[in-house]
Amino acid sequence: MADEQDIVLYGYFRSGTSYRVRIALNWKGVPFQYQPVNLLTGAHQDAEFLARNPQALVPALSVSGTTLTQSPAILEWIEETWPDPALLPDDPVLRARVRAFAAVVACDVHPIQNLRVMKKIRADFGQDQDGALDWARHWIATGFEALEALAGAAPGANGFLFADTATMAEVYLVPQMFNARRFGVDLSAFPRLVAADAAASALPAFEASRPEVQPDAPADA
Amino acid sequence: MADEQDIVLYGYFRSGTSYRVRIALNWKGVPFQYQPVNLLTGAHQDAEFLARNPQALVPALSVSGTTLTQSPAILEWIEETWPDPALLPDDPVLRARVRAFAAVVACDVHPIQNLRVMKKIRADFGQDQDGALDWARHWIATGFEALEALAGAAPGANGFLFADTATMAEVYLVPQMFNARRFGVDLSAFPRLVAADAAASALPAFEASRPEVQPDAPADA
Repeated sequence: MADEQDIVLYGYFRSGTSYRVRIALNWKGVPFQYQPVNLLTGAHQDAEFLARNPQALVPALSVSGTTLTQSPAILEWIEETWPDPALLPDDPVLRARVRAFAAVVACDVHPIQNLRVMKKIRADFGQDQDGALDWARHWIATGFEALEALAGAAPGANGFLFADTATMAEVYLVPQMFNARRFGVDLSAFPRLVAADAAASALPAFEASRPEVQPDAPADA
Repeated sequence: MADEQDIVLYGYFRSGTSYRVRIALNWKGVPFQYQPVNLLTGAHQDAEFLARNPQALVPALSVSGTTLTQSPAILEWIEETWPDPALLPDDPVLRARVRAFAAVVACDVHPIQNLRVMKKIRADFGQDQDGALDWARHWIATGFEALEALAGAAPGANGFLFADTATMAEVYLVPQMFNARRFGVDLSAFPRLVAADAAASALPAFEASRPEVQPDAPADA
């Protein structure tokens, strides 16, 4: 068990992967320090941060001096270290369905529409910001079609996806919905996702994790 | 526990994510049927396969009539269902490091260079096959720099990354190395990855999972 006093989350207010980790830590009631890394000014390329994470990506979670990286790995570690309240169901097949939902976000949506990929679309293929946004919106909408189908078959209640409260599915969904809105994705075809996002966002752990209320969010965010 | 007689893997010989699942099933000694889905002829868009996986992606694992999707979720399910021989270490921090290595492949490399993304690069941005391959090689090399750094700090032995034999890290690495070679990535800067790939590929479970020996591989593959 890690010493809870020594947990530092290096993140960025608007990074979807940092947002996921904030939600999980708040869900478990784990005290942690939040250390902003400004991706727009290149703070993730500073020597101090590179020593911590040579991949120059947030989030990174410092645990008593050891640094954990990659949000899917960090989230599984959090779930194993603080099992209650759970973010994964006990039933093996239902766990697999929750993890599949999460993986659609983690593998098929988020990486293809993140900042570094959109930068390269602009640099290599002569696209302006609108072209890069069209690219992002395409992959978000494609992934959301899959997620809406998974959500439609999911056994949740009260608007939630796989249980009568949030699970790891909502931990991944809510930050991706934030990105979808920021990028102007039409959400009208995804009522089940909109409902789950609304249900989860009202919970205190999700509320405290919102980008807008982080210390590195600008006043007009 | 699933009935081992009823496990069917829907995959494609050259799909890296199908390859991962073949390795894990063979590693655990789980008997399974392999059902090829030809991505080049569009068999993943057939009604029969869509009924199984509306996302139209391989792999899908049918377990006594239930279909599991998304290789990261399938692999965690396999590990939980057949814990021995393990693919994840017992130590919580080491588990997190293995899962982080896997996530670099699963999130930061594979999705950005897969078939559907390369198709869209060609269709939307007027790129030919060389342009699409340049894109793929860039993201593989960027990810491999991160993986080589993680590998350099990893405590493995006998060429392996995190233990004295393969773990989930090699389950993700070996298929990505296959793709890297197929796409012509220069591997000279990644000696630790080349060594781990060679060590793992010599193991029977990995050998039996190679694309070239699958029933849907063409004779000249």
